[in-house]
Amino acid sequence: MTKRHIVLQTDFGISDGAVSAMYGVAISVDPSLRIFDLTHDIPQYDIWEASYRLYQTISYWPEETVFVSVVDPGVGTDRRSIVVKTAENQYIVTPDNGTLTHIQSEIGIVAARVIDESVNRLPKSGESYTFHGRDVYAYTAARLAAGIITFEEIGAEVSLDSVIQLAKMEPVVNEGGVTGNIDILDIRFGNLWTNIDRSLFKQLDANHGDSFEVTIQNDVRQVYKNIMTYGRSFADSRRGEPLLFVNSLDKLGVAINQGSFAQAYHIETGYKWKISIRKLLENSYTQ
Amino acid sequence: MTKRHIVLQTDFGISDGAVSAMYGVAISVDPSLRIFDLTHDIPQYDIWEASYRLYQTISYWPEETVFVSVVDPGVGTDRRSIVVKTAENQYIVTPDNGTLTHIQSEIGIVAARVIDESVNRLPKSGESYTFHGRDVYAYTAARLAAGIITFEEIGAEVSLDSVIQLAKMEPVVNEGGVTGNIDILDIRFGNLWTNIDRSLFKQLDANHGDSFEVTIQNDVRQVYKNIMTYGRSFADSRRGEPLLFVNSLDKLGVAINQGSFAQAYHIETGYKWKISIRKLLENSYTQ
Amino acid sequence: MTKRHIVLQTDFGISDGAVSAMYGVAISVDPSLRIFDLTHDIPQYDIWEASYRLYQTISYWPEETVFVSVVDPGVGTDRRSIVVKTAENQYIVTPDNGTLTHIQSEIGIVAARVIDESVNRLPKSGESYTFHGRDVYAYTAARLAAGIITFEEIGAEVSLDSVIQLAKMEPVVNEGGVTGNIDILDIRFGNLWTNIDRSLFKQLDANHGDSFEVTIQNDVRQVYKNIMTYGRSFADSRRGEPLLFVNSLDKLGVAINQGSFAQAYHIETGYKWKISIRKLLENSYTQ
Repeated sequence: MTKRHIVLQTDFGISDGAVSAMYGVAISVDPSLRIFDLTHDIPQYDIWEASYRLYQTISYWPEETVFVSVVDPGVGTDRRSIVVKTAENQYIVTPDNGTLTHIQSEIGIVAARVIDESVNRLPKSGESYTFHGRDVYAYTAARLAAGIITFEEIGAEVSLDSVIQLAKMEPVVNEGGVTGNIDILDIRFGNLWTNIDRSLFKQLDANHGDSFEVTIQNDVRQVYKNIMTYGRSFADSRRGEPLLFVNSLDKLGVAINQGSFAQAYHIETGYKWKISIRKLLENSYTQ
Repeated sequence: MTKRHIVLQTDFGISDGAVSAMYGVAISVDPSLRIFDLTHDIPQYDIWEASYRLYQTISYWPEETVFVSVVDPGVGTDRRSIVVKTAENQYIVTPDNGTLTHIQSEIGIVAARVIDESVNRLPKSGESYTFHGRDVYAYTAARLAAGIITFEEIGAEVSLDSVIQLAKMEPVVNEGGVTGNIDILDIRFGNLWTNIDRSLFKQLDANHGDSFEVTIQNDVRQVYKNIMTYGRSFADSRRGEPLLFVNSLDKLGVAINQGSFAQAYHIETGYKWKISIRKLLENSYTQ
Repeated sequence: MTKRHIVLQTDFGISDGAVSAMYGVAISVDPSLRIFDLTHDIPQYDIWEASYRLYQTISYWPEETVFVSVVDPGVGTDRRSIVVKTAENQYIVTPDNGTLTHIQSEIGIVAARVIDESVNRLPKSGESYTFHGRDVYAYTAARLAAGIITFEEIGAEVSLDSVIQLAKMEPVVNEGGVTGNIDILDIRFGNLWTNIDRSLFKQLDANHGDSFEVTIQNDVRQVYKNIMTYGRSFADSRRGEPLLFVNSLDKLGVAINQGSFAQAYHIETGYKWKISIRKLLENSYTQ
C-alpha cells in the first residue's frame, strides 16, 4: 500500500515541543511517513474554528490523507476519541466534540469508529494522562497512515447520528436581502467570511459593481451599517474602501482593500454575529 | 546506511529567511534528507528553555535522529561547538553553553566531540562570521545525518565532564511537603511545569481528589498561596478552578482549567521561582 | 527526472488553512513532491521584504529548486503572473510586482514567462477568483517541479526588461564616510541590515576595533547619532553596547549586543531610512 499522508491541526502553538513530539511519535511508527501541518494556531479550545479550518482545507488534499485535529477542552472527561471516514475518502482523527461539524454538513461522513485505547495507544505512555494528542491521536493516525492497522481496527463502529455537532445557523433570503452569520475571519488580512453561498447571494440579482447595504449585528446590537460595492476582486475598490466579494470557498466575504475590516470595526465571529445584505434599488441613495 | 532524520531548534523565529537557509544548506548536502522542526520560538538567548525543550521532545524521536539546537548568546566568543551522542543513541549538534543540561542529567551523554570547523564548515561561507547556525551547525548535522562523515570525523573527542551545565536545583521533601522549582511553562495554555517528579509527590501520600496548599515564591517574595485539588485531569475541576496535575513528562504541574495560571498570577520560570506543596490534613481547613 | 524541491513564501501567516491548501494542491499534483517554507510572515503586501527574503535565502538551496512567492496587493488587477529562471538555475513563481527586485540586481534573471492561466490553473477552481496562491501559483510550481510541464509550457516568454523593479538606492562613499539605506531588519534580534557591502565599507580603511560615528535619518529627521565600534562579532562588545558588524549576507549591520537596536530607537526600513557611517580620526573624540 502507498503510504497515506498525515496532516496535523492543533491549538498547541509551535513554541514548545508538543507538536514536535507528535511528529516524533508518528515518525517512530514508520520513518517513511510524510507529515504536514494544517495549523497549530487554532485559538485554545475553539472547536468551531477547528471545524472550519478542516473544512476550508481538506478538499485540497489527496484521497486517503489522514487528518489529525486536537482541540480538546474536554480532555480527561469521557468524551470519545474517534476516527471518521469522509465522503471524499479521507480520514480524520479527533476528539468527538463538534470538530466535525462542518465536515459532516458540507462534505459528509460515511463511517465512524471510536478509538480503542487498549490497543491504539503509544506503548511507553504510562501514567501520563494529559497528552492524548501525542499518545493516542498521533500514534493512531500514524499506524493508520502506514497501513499497520486498518480503519476497522481503530475500534468499534459508532453511529453517524451520534457524532457531536455544534449548533450551526443557515442563511436565509428575505425581503430583498440575505441574512447569515460571520463564520470566521481571514485572520491575517482581517476579512470577514460569512456562511452565505455565492449561489444564495445571486438570488438578490447581484452583479459585479452593484451596491449593497451591509448591516452587521452582534446579537441585538448594531455594529456596522454602510453601503458597499460587490467587486470582482479587491482591485475593483480603492485602497481603504470596503467591498463585498466571493472568497476562496465560494462564500460571501467583506473586506477593506488593503486594510483589516475586522480590526476597524471590532468584528468577531460566531452565531451571534449576524450580517444582512440588502440590494440597493437604482438611485435609492441618490435623489 | 538509512538516512538519519534532522530536527532543528533555534531562537531565530520563522519570520525571516534564517531557518529556511539552514534547511537549504542541509538539503544541498543531500537532497533526500528529511528535516523537521522542534521549535524556533525559544526566547532569544534562553539556553535553559532550549535545554528543556530538547529534553521534553527527544525521547519521542527515533534512535539516530540528529538534533540541532542553536541558541547562542556567545556566538563569536571561544565557546566550543560540539556534537554529543546520548545514552538513547541520538545526536545533538549545539554550542557548548548549557543547552545540554537536561539531556546530561535526565537522559545521559555517552560521547562528545568538538566540531573541527576547518573541515566541517560550509565551503562557500567565507568572511561571514555571524551565522554559525547555517554554516557550521546545519551543515555538520546534514553531513552526519547523510553518512558523509562519521561521528568520529566531527573532530576531537572531549571529556563529558567538560560539557557545560547550567545550575539546576533538585526538589526536596520536607515536613509534610515538597519544594521544587517552576522549570518552564506550557506556553500556550499558561500551565506551570515544576521539576517535582510524580514519584516524589507520591511520598506525600497524594491521591486524586486530595487538597494541597500551594505556595509560589519569586526569590523571597510570596506570589501565590492557595488550596487546590490534585486532579486526574483538567476535567476533575470546574472551569476557572486551579488544580495540581501530572504532566506529559510525569512531573507535577499547576493549571487553571481553561485559563492561564501563569498569566493570572504573573508567574515566570527559573531557579528563583520556587513552589511548595503541602498536603492538608483531613479537616484542617474545616472546623 | 529527479523531482525539484518547492519552497513557499507568502504573507498569509500560518494561522488558518491557506498555506496548507497550497501544500495540498501541490501534493495532489504529485504525492512525492517535497515542499518547504521560506516564511509566511512577510508583512502583508510588503513586496520589498518579500524580495529581500528571497535574495537572503535562495543561494542556500540547490539548483532547480522552484520558489513560490505570493505577496500580491494587486491580486485581481491585470498584474502579470510570471515564472523566472535565475542565473543560478532556480525558478521563482510570483506575481510580477517587484518581488524580483533583489534577485534581478544581485543574482540575475535569464528568462521569464507569463503564466498562461488557461492551462496552468487548478481544474476545480471555478468561480473563486481570490486565491491565486493556491489555484495558480502552487499548482503551476508543482507541475513544473514534478516535470509535468517544462519551463517553456508555462506560457509566452516576456522580456527581462519588462519585469517590474522597485526603486532601489545604491550606497555611496563620500568625504570619509559611506551612506546607504536600512534595507531590512533581522526581525527577531532587532538588528539593522544595511545595503552597504563589506567591500565598500572597507574603503573607509575599516579594521576591527575602529570607532565610527553612525547617523541614522528618517528622511530629513535625524533619529540616531552615536559612536560605535566595528566588531568581529557581538562578543567584541559588552552586553547592551551598540556595534557595527558584517552580517550573513556580507553587508554592514548595526546591533546592540543582546538587545534590539530597532526597538530601542524605533528604527524602520526602506529607502527613506538612511544611515551614514564616518570613521573617527584617531583621538578625534579625546582631547
